[in-house]
Amino acid sequence: MILVLKSNPEKEKVDNLIKMLNDKGLATNISEGSSHTVIGLIGDTSRLPVDLISAIDIVESVTRISEPFKAANRKIHPESTIVKVTENVSIGEGFFHVIAGPCSVESEEQVIEVAKDVKASGATLLRGGAFKPRTSPYAFQGLHADGLKLLLEAKKATGLPVVTEIMNVNHLDLFEDVDVIQVGARNMQNFDLLKELGKCRKPILLKRGLANTMEEFLMSAEYIMAGGNSNVILCERGIRTFETKTRNTLDLSAIPMLKKLSHLPIIVDPSHATGISWMVEPMSKAAVAVGADGLMIEVHNDPPKALCDGAQSLDPKQFDSLMKEIKRRVEFEGKQG
Amino acid sequence: MILVLKSNPEKEKVDNLIKMLNDKGLATNISEGSSHTVIGLIGDTSRLPVDLISAIDIVESVTRISEPFKAANRKIHPESTIVKVTENVSIGEGFFHVIAGPCSVESEEQVIEVAKDVKASGATLLRGGAFKPRTSPYAFQGLHADGLKLLLEAKKATGLPVVTEIMNVNHLDLFEDVDVIQVGARNMQNFDLLKELGKCRKPILLKRGLANTMEEFLMSAEYIMAGGNSNVILCERGIRTFETKTRNTLDLSAIPMLKKLSHLPIIVDPSHATGISWMVEPMSKAAVAVGADGLMIEVHNDPPKALCDGAQSLDPKQFDSLMKEIKRRVEFEGKQG
Amino acid sequence: MILVLKSNPEKEKVDNLIKMLNDKGLATNISEGSSHTVIGLIGDTSRLPVDLISAIDIVESVTRISEPFKAANRKIHPESTIVKVTENVSIGEGFFHVIAGPCSVESEEQVIEVAKDVKASGATLLRGGAFKPRTSPYAFQGLHADGLKLLLEAKKATGLPVVTEIMNVNHLDLFEDVDVIQVGARNMQNFDLLKELGKCRKPILLKRGLANTMEEFLMSAEYIMAGGNSNVILCERGIRTFETKTRNTLDLSAIPMLKKLSHLPIIVDPSHATGISWMVEPMSKAAVAVGADGLMIEVHNDPPKALCDGAQSLDPKQFDSLMKEIKRRVEFEGKQG
Amino acid sequence: MILVLKSNPEKEKVDNLIKMLNDKGLATNISEGSSHTVIGLIGDTSRLPVDLISAIDIVESVTRISEPFKAANRKIHPESTIVKVTENVSIGEGFFHVIAGPCSVESEEQVIEVAKDVKASGATLLRGGAFKPRTSPYAFQGLHADGLKLLLEAKKATGLPVVTEIMNVNHLDLFEDVDVIQVGARNMQNFDLLKELGKCRKPILLKRGLANTMEEFLMSAEYIMAGGNSNVILCERGIRTFETKTRNTLDLSAIPMLKKLSHLPIIVDPSHATGISWMVEPMSKAAVAVGADGLMIEVHNDPPKALCDGAQSLDPKQFDSLMKEIKRRVEFEGKQG
Repeated sequence: MILVLKSNPEKEKVDNLIKMLNDKGLATNISEGSSHTVIGLIGDTSRLPVDLISAIDIVESVTRISEPFKAANRKIHPESTIVKVTENVSIGEGFFHVIAGPCSVESEEQVIEVAKDVKASGATLLRGGAFKPRTSPYAFQGLHADGLKLLLEAKKATGLPVVTEIMNVNHLDLFEDVDVIQVGARNMQNFDLLKELGKCRKPILLKRGLANTMEEFLMSAEYIMAGGNSNVILCERGIRTFETKTRNTLDLSAIPMLKKLSHLPIIVDPSHATGISWMVEPMSKAAVAVGADGLMIEVHNDPPKALCDGAQSLDPKQFDSLMKEIKRRVEFEGKQG
Repeated sequence: MILVLKSNPEKEKVDNLIKMLNDKGLATNISEGSSHTVIGLIGDTSRLPVDLISAIDIVESVTRISEPFKAANRKIHPESTIVKVTENVSIGEGFFHVIAGPCSVESEEQVIEVAKDVKASGATLLRGGAFKPRTSPYAFQGLHADGLKLLLEAKKATGLPVVTEIMNVNHLDLFEDVDVIQVGARNMQNFDLLKELGKCRKPILLKRGLANTMEEFLMSAEYIMAGGNSNVILCERGIRTFETKTRNTLDLSAIPMLKKLSHLPIIVDPSHATGISWMVEPMSKAAVAVGADGLMIEVHNDPPKALCDGAQSLDPKQFDSLMKEIKRRVEFEGKQG
Repeated sequence: MILVLKSNPEKEKVDNLIKMLNDKGLATNISEGSSHTVIGLIGDTSRLPVDLISAIDIVESVTRISEPFKAANRKIHPESTIVKVTENVSIGEGFFHVIAGPCSVESEEQVIEVAKDVKASGATLLRGGAFKPRTSPYAFQGLHADGLKLLLEAKKATGLPVVTEIMNVNHLDLFEDVDVIQVGARNMQNFDLLKELGKCRKPILLKRGLANTMEEFLMSAEYIMAGGNSNVILCERGIRTFETKTRNTLDLSAIPMLKKLSHLPIIVDPSHATGISWMVEPMSKAAVAVGADGLMIEVHNDPPKALCDGAQSLDPKQFDSLMKEIKRRVEFEGKQG
Repeated sequence: MILVLKSNPEKEKVDNLIKMLNDKGLATNISEGSSHTVIGLIGDTSRLPVDLISAIDIVESVTRISEPFKAANRKIHPESTIVKVTENVSIGEGFFHVIAGPCSVESEEQVIEVAKDVKASGATLLRGGAFKPRTSPYAFQGLHADGLKLLLEAKKATGLPVVTEIMNVNHLDLFEDVDVIQVGARNMQNFDLLKELGKCRKPILLKRGLANTMEEFLMSAEYIMAGGNSNVILCERGIRTFETKTRNTLDLSAIPMLKKLSHLPIIVDPSHATGISWMVEPMSKAAVAVGADGLMIEVHNDPPKALCDGAQSLDPKQFDSLMKEIKRRVEFEGKQG
């Protein structure tokens, strides 16, 4: 960490600051510039809050050199993490998995039909929402515990491991047979939920918040990992920008950058990112090429009648055609489907 | 709600669509334009999801005319809501209250000292965090239940009603003696938390999420109000933009716009918005002038030693000088302090 | 265009409004909803400014149904435009071209050396800046007319057509032998420059402004096309968001969306979008897969000594390795290199 | 400037880097941290491009300590600049001026009528556009030279100095009798135009680009000042964010921040920032309170018939009522109107 002091600080204040830093176990290196004095801190600064230091009256600016995340940091853990979901499904470097299914579980018939269809087309995990975060309190909120039960029946019927979203720490018991627990974009900084998920050992699919930086994203992964659960799968699903033609702006540059910063696997959700079903295919192709470890795609047996997010869902036929494209490309990249 | 159909839709599909809409109790008015057919819906469309309709293949675009919020809507409830916190403290039109105190409660001595100071300067509510949402799992997370106890002692010592943040529905019991429960920006769309708060009757201070639109903000208020709790106080605390000189961009235009759209009171938090202590004064002056119903300001007895957010805290002397300025201006606006 | 009127408008004002619209040659269709009256306009509304209509006191909102661009609109011109740069170089559907070269022309030796290198690796157009838009007046501003001359010598030496940026309408004469004139992101809405370029018949490479919507981007293309020059190549080069790990956020979803809205070719500039040389390769792969018609890449013989933008430049060896990757992928997509 | 090197750099490369920096006249101070080596540069680094240094392979990050602007920098020129427009009109610290008039000059009658009205209400400068930057090539583009003539007649009729926008360096001759030349938001980084304006001595009203940081804004002012023209007036007019209820987001925190960073006067344009006429009053009040040196407000004799931006224009009666409010507040702030 580097502190730049304001011009002409009082010597006594500088001495006090250095003493305070030394008391925290940090060595200091002082450099007198033409207009500013610079203090370099030597030692572990990860627990030293930038804002505390910034508040000191003689300090002009503070720059952190080492990243504030550790467990998620590739510099510290150079090897790519492979998250093992089941015997046959491992997510991470070298693999490419497609998670597919309806936005929300609506009925036994619907979810089992979609599950069979997406399996036949090559999806290896089934998604389906039982607890739905909706902007409006008047919109359909999901079938809750009943929805989870139906999703687990679809798992039984097809053998596909399931991914579904948790919205409340108190529901954790209901997720016992769920294979991957999803944390939605709006809950990316619901720190109490993250801490609780850090205590279990299930894979967690963590979605990037729609206005969160990559660093904040990794800090949220760090919350889960700091609790002891290192089975974290990141998911880029679009960020909020000024553009209105697409629902969000899919930030594909986040894929290589997050892979550089962290060893965690990362997948892409083109359905939520664009909000438009015909855009799922081109953005999926780009996600494969840019190096993502998988995709999460909404598929509904009858999109116009979907109880949520119909506009971005593919029907099973469209999904089948998409999967043919994806398989060719995954092969081209030399990855295992 | 207005539907614009794609060019040359099949007559049968249009008839099906109209039948479906009529079945939902909506009358339709059809207008054939030179290039497009437009269907106007007559009736209550608040439960008709835009995305469901958008997904229908012959529909090109959907425009909602009536706002999707009702309980929070000024058109439906024209009179301004006054939230009564205590016998002496009412927040809303005609009043101006300043909520002040430390970012986090650190010790009995600290919180009581600050509470006495801010009361002496004219603050009418005390803030102080016991549960702190921090980006890093390694940063100080607050004193939790102990912090709440200390805050309540400061309430006893000064008579000031207290405002403090909740992060977890399971902590609600601990908030029994808290006067105003705060929902932080990161939890603005933690819908399960909002629903739970809708069941109690305490005033809720709801902060705008850092990348949420005004409409989403009001929809989150609507979640609380739909549960029966209409004591909602909105708080603008800066939105995330590309600018880096300030921590966030304080959106003061949200104050008159939210007052036009809604009857709820709205206050401003210049401390979190700017992240810089010397900016609190000019932004507070602007907040008074633009029509806010109050301010929320961080005050710490020793900002450089604050365990969080020191850089934006005022010390008691600076706060006292700020309050002198604010009082003159509140008087100028003809409001009660 | 659809007008929604405010609740309970005065009948006389509605009649006046309808008369005014009819006088402009537009037919109207009026629909009385439960809470609002809606007027649908029938006829050519492309010259009717939304803001004029919005300003009328009884009007609540105005929605445009047809896009405001015409010459650039795929609905009106369904066939994809192929811009012919030379006998051998055509940019558009079915082709994939890589434009490469230094950010700025620095010396004869430098530009010729780089030109030969990028040609050997497979680039089909040479880029190089002579007029450089720099944030700081104290930064290197380019070699101006001398730089153009050197660039044209590199053209002669290699046979590569050249692309270079114009910043000032008065320099147009100097660009006589330039093959493609580039309009930079900061000048995307320099309308006087666009109008002037509309009068010539040279291909124009128009970069998206860093905070411009896709619609504004197409409206700027429309400025050039309205003057009679339909040889416009669009270029996505990253938009400004809150993220700081990359210089800009490359909006790859703009590629399929712009191809849907418009018939113009579109290429991607991963160098400026990311600002980081090692990110050029993954983002280039994604650009090929998402359907771009080409790439624009910075290559410098000695990046650390580049007079501008060194951090994002590839050296010739890195570029050669990138081109091998790109060729395989262009072939996979079934396009001509 | 501070350079952080990558872990374990080769000694030879570090020596080369230091030699290169010393050759540029900079002294270096080297600090070996636990994980990184840090080099502090001592001397004038304002001409050392950050990107050049960033591109060096052993450099991890570069932090600039001194601001890159000099002529506009308050640290170097602590005294506030007062821009003298005429004998009676000086813009800057201690004064508060309101510039008012129509978005575009439409006819002699219109501009003279509005000029007389706004003068009677207390405006001290007249605005009116002759060259209009419009998103669409099909929208009204202004009356050009004829518009300027009419504006100057309004000047003669009322004695008000005039402010009008330039879009093209070639039009400069036409602006001889204009008192203040405006550079619009879209041209904030039209560097050739800025350089040309740096050669004249007329006051320049420079509007902030809708996605430009405060630092970029000051660098554009620096372009004008570097040419020798220090009569620059800054104007905040809203930035582009994700919010759609207002046209732009007025960044009032820019006022105190720009005044801290720079000695230049700064005014606020609430009409363009919000795009909504009823919001002009509350945002104007806030602008006075936050410390702006003036306002720029659109006034039209018949807003619904305005040829551009009617939705945000006040009519003369509304403007008169606004001015009464503003005068009380300017007096309250102890400024001269």
